[in-house]
Amino acid sequence: MTSQGQKEEVTLTQFLDSVAGPSATPGGGSVSALAGCLGAALVEMVINLTLGKKGFAAQEAELQKIREEAHSYREALTGTVEQDSLAYQAVMNAFLLPKKTDEEKRKRKEQIQHALKRAADPPLFTAATSLKVLKLCQEAVEKGNPNTISDAAVGALLADAALGGGIFNVLINLSALEDKHFAEKMKKELQRLEAEGEAIKKAIFSRIKEKINYP
Amino acid sequence: MTSQGQKEEVTLTQFLDSVAGPSATPGGGSVSALAGCLGAALVEMVINLTLGKKGFAAQEAELQKIREEAHSYREALTGTVEQDSLAYQAVMNAFLLPKKTDEEKRKRKEQIQHALKRAADPPLFTAATSLKVLKLCQEAVEKGNPNTISDAAVGALLADAALGGGIFNVLINLSALEDKHFAEKMKKELQRLEAEGEAIKKAIFSRIKEKINYP
Repeated sequence: MTSQGQKEEVTLTQFLDSVAGPSATPGGGSVSALAGCLGAALVEMVINLTLGKKGFAAQEAELQKIREEAHSYREALTGTVEQDSLAYQAVMNAFLLPKKTDEEKRKRKEQIQHALKRAADPPLFTAATSLKVLKLCQEAVEKGNPNTISDAAVGALLADAALGGGIFNVLINLSALEDKHFAEKMKKELQRLEAEGEAIKKAIFSRIKEKINYP
Repeated sequence: MTSQGQKEEVTLTQFLDSVAGPSATPGGGSVSALAGCLGAALVEMVINLTLGKKGFAAQEAELQKIREEAHSYREALTGTVEQDSLAYQAVMNAFLLPKKTDEEKRKRKEQIQHALKRAADPPLFTAATSLKVLKLCQEAVEKGNPNTISDAAVGALLADAALGGGIFNVLINLSALEDKHFAEKMKKELQRLEAEGEAIKKAIFSRIKEKINYP
């Protein structure tokens, strides 16, 4: 993750400052991707604090597979933190194109619509990948070291926030799209992701509350 | 935010790696505090993209107040990212105390109980402060630039995840506490925070879905 145009890595404080600042990027789309990264990192932590512990030897291969998957989703979502900002900047740039002649107006409108469609990709990826992270959190709750259950719980909360955040960011783009067929198809996909996520989240938290004996 | 014992700021990638790694800190408690920071930063962003825009001149003082509050919560929660790890390390250190003689056993047990009680403070602070951030997200949805509604939505998702994460981290400590009176009192406070958060979250999202015309 690099700050806009710079090669060096941004610090946590720099990232928070750049979110808070008066520019539209990084915004909710990038923060959603980061939430997915944090959820995936917590799954990796749970597995790292489970592997090698007494009573988990038989599940070693299965646990390693969960950790590998979580790591690959984290890497992919780390890239999306920046891609989301870049895709949104392309939308803003298209709005800045000249619009004096009819030809310029036509070209500008075409560019805006093109950029809007492309800007839906990063948050859709965040939503779909965070749903996968949420599924891994469910496995971490079931199969991980019981001492790490609150870490798995926080992982699930972050993955769920990332899924919801991705969905909102796609929706916002769709509302300005003229290709209503594309928008409807996308909306159906979002509703499917949302419904699946809600069912898994409910299952995870009723299981966790059962395990920690909280109403 | 500094990595353990170091003065320099950690980068996003370093923080994610240290969450994922095989040590118990930073874990779900620190990630919850960071989620609260991200929610607060998004409120600041919404206000920064609202102030000075046409149609918002009359609300300037009110908007500035929201931004100031969000900023102070972000600063406080930034400190909690590290405090949570330190408080949990104190619990782990207490478990490592010698336990050969009866006197050592008594002292160790006393230290563990003391550290457990103190370790409830950072996640309780995260939960209570993130609830305040969630309330600011509600104001941001109502009073902010409509173009930033998905940023306010993601802010609310993150603040809500931070609230839930703080709650789980306090609960985990309580389960090992011998002072059942303290534990019961704390549980009631957590249930109050949870219920208030759920009501606000529900209100925010029914309002947002209404505004963006999503079922």
